Amino acid sequence: MQVDPMTYRDLDPGQRILMGPGPSNVPSRVLQAMASPCIGHLDPYFLEIMDETQELLRFLFQTENSLTISVSGTGSSGMETCLVNLVEPGDKVLVCVNGVFGTRMCDIVTRIGGQLIRVDAPWGRAIDPDDVRRATKDKGASLIAVVHAETSTGACSPVADISKVAREVGALFLVDVVTSLGGMEVSLDSMGIDAAYGGTQKCISCPPGLSPVSFSPRAMEKLNGRKTPVPSWYLDMTMVSSYWGPERKYHHTAPINMIYAFREALRIIAEEGLEERWARHRLNHGALVSGLEAMGLEMLVPEDQRLPMLSAVLIPEGCDDLAARRALLERFGIEIGGGLGDLAGRIWRIGLMGHSCRPENVFIFLSALESILRAQGVKIREGGLQAASRVYDEASEYRG
Amino acid sequence: MQVDPMTYRDLDPGQRILMGPGPSNVPSRVLQAMASPCIGHLDPYFLEIMDETQELLRFLFQTENSLTISVSGTGSSGMETCLVNLVEPGDKVLVCVNGVFGTRMCDIVTRIGGQLIRVDAPWGRAIDPDDVRRATKDKGASLIAVVHAETSTGACSPVADISKVAREVGALFLVDVVTSLGGMEVSLDSMGIDAAYGGTQKCISCPPGLSPVSFSPRAMEKLNGRKTPVPSWYLDMTMVSSYWGPERKYHHTAPINMIYAFREALRIIAEEGLEERWARHRLNHGALVSGLEAMGLEMLVPEDQRLPMLSAVLIPEGCDDLAARRALLERFGIEIGGGLGDLAGRIWRIGLMGHSCRPENVFIFLSALESILRAQGVKIREGGLQAASRVYDEASEYRG
Repeated sequence: MQVDPMTYRDLDPGQRILMGPGPSNVPSRVLQAMASPCIGHLDPYFLEIMDETQELLRFLFQTENSLTISVSGTGSSGMETCLVNLVEPGDKVLVCVNGVFGTRMCDIVTRIGGQLIRVDAPWGRAIDPDDVRRATKDKGASLIAVVHAETSTGACSPVADISKVAREVGALFLVDVVTSLGGMEVSLDSMGIDAAYGGTQKCISCPPGLSPVSFSPRAMEKLNGRKTPVPSWYLDMTMVSSYWGPERKYHHTAPINMIYAFREALRIIAEEGLEERWARHRLNHGALVSGLEAMGLEMLVPEDQRLPMLSAVLIPEGCDDLAARRALLERFGIEIGGGLGDLAGRIWRIGLMGHSCRPENVFIFLSALESILRAQGVKIREGGLQAASRVYDEASEYRG
Repeated sequence: MQVDPMTYRDLDPGQRILMGPGPSNVPSRVLQAMASPCIGHLDPYFLEIMDETQELLRFLFQTENSLTISVSGTGSSGMETCLVNLVEPGDKVLVCVNGVFGTRMCDIVTRIGGQLIRVDAPWGRAIDPDDVRRATKDKGASLIAVVHAETSTGACSPVADISKVAREVGALFLVDVVTSLGGMEVSLDSMGIDAAYGGTQKCISCPPGLSPVSFSPRAMEKLNGRKTPVPSWYLDMTMVSSYWGPERKYHHTAPINMIYAFREALRIIAEEGLEERWARHRLNHGALVSGLEAMGLEMLVPEDQRLPMLSAVLIPEGCDDLAARRALLERFGIEIGGGLGDLAGRIWRIGLMGHSCRPENVFIFLSALESILRAQGVKIREGGLQAASRVYDEASEYRG
């Protein structure tokens, strides 16, 4: 069995403007760091890099949690990590579901034998803390799990309020911060979050391949007091944390170059500052939405429940979804996301995450969309770009 | 909670000569490919790259298996993937154990409720196929698992012979090829291997972070006929394969840049040719061992059971293990591995894997070791480098 190596060309993915639900564009500093020579996973220099990565990650998570590391897999592996470590067969787990990622948590809880309690909200709406309170009063829960930023809809759930419910009933509180982390406030300690997992390819603007996670002392208590073994060897945090901790006990070979990239992305965040970064996401989101609404388009999510880094807009009547997205990608090099599940063909998901979250991208996207919609004969109003401009002008006058 | 970004310096891992049990040195072509711009995981260009990666990987595995992909985690995640997909609670699983990685398989089998049958061989020795035959006659087995190349000891087990036993008893045959893949023959179809998992950072010379796996049609039958769900959502091959297959169903965001790197590493292997690559590993191994033995050092593993890419040598009497390895790393920039478990302090593990597998490295290492041992007052014989030279000279005379 042979292959002809000549049929495989030099890699050349070109440049895209990544404005979908992730990955976002990766700064060249991060790509360069990733391309540094690979060294051993127990090399003294690499162990320093791991320590620094943990420090920077604690800063990003705003936590003192000792177990704050990156799991060697993508964001979904972080979801699985938190659940397999914190849930034992028979445990009551309340999962809030208002999109794809809440549904995924239910799937995992069921596979590992947790007793699932679902609290649903319509897709595109936030979870109502009172619904969570009622459900726990009826049925109890040892863990409450919620997606902060539902990447499938652009809805933001009130994590701080749901945290209070978890404290009231003595449940651990697990939050999916895959899309929110690095783009809006995710302060684990002050928000009372016991376990959280993120992804690197959203507002952190590092390539996909790692999942930052953090466990509070209360979560560690649950983990260390388990009566059954963690069902996954690869994701067993009692073992993984021994490698990240001072004992440096070999568990599995760390994804060295991905950690180089992650550290650099975290360093860029520290240089910008968290408040400044969150403000940047809010500002560009505001400009995008003003532009879209000025054109006559409607958002899926009510204003007070919208995420800053991911905006779901209803596809206007008469527009061919696939053709429009193909034109965006092929003519303009812009990637946006389509809808998932029942929302397929009904919404677009427009990301302004991390390095992709820039005024230029807002203007490029609005003008590209305008021309595509006009070419398709879709009726839209004038003045989208001007509306976006006004948002930036007002912001700079305010800062003035 | 703040950090001072100025305390985190620019990344600069320097250059190491990686001659441990992995990672091996990564060619700059692979690092450059990895640093290409990140694009979307459903971008048409990236989907082509995935297809090409699969073709190249089938070539490396010498298989027609449709399900031949890279799992989004390190080598150990591949081990877990194979076991969680192919073992159901109560299934009889025979695991061959002659080192750390066989032991790890036992751990996973137990966690997922498999009925474990162990066949042991001493660490540093191959598994005896007759022991496997006897154990299956006594107890039966629905799956037989073995580590081809035990990275903890340098012993090579006779996979083709154990495969026959698996066929005799109608068991699936699972092989850990983490360290062998790309450095010696691993021909899944002709060897009757039903499932295999590798790592990228050994003889493939790509950074760690992916695990190539392949499932035969018989393995797929077991997977598709399961009575219980796969316990891991992240590693559930029925779902992961939908993303790699023509339906391109979103499961999790692929580690884009790692796949860029992996494809480039596979392309380099296709350019070299498999036979040529295996011969290169045998040749350099022969030179290294001749040099070590000429110096009076002894190998752990009997000659007919030695791996070409990883050589375990007994630490000579009077030598300070840690001081010697520290000197290798700090003065010469050479990383080798120490012993694990009972072999800690008793052996060194010297890797000649993939891009690290070069005559220069053999000579650099032998001369560095010689000088360090002499400085420690350890008695060694003259002529190590000359013995290694002779192996190369004879090989080039033979080739004419």
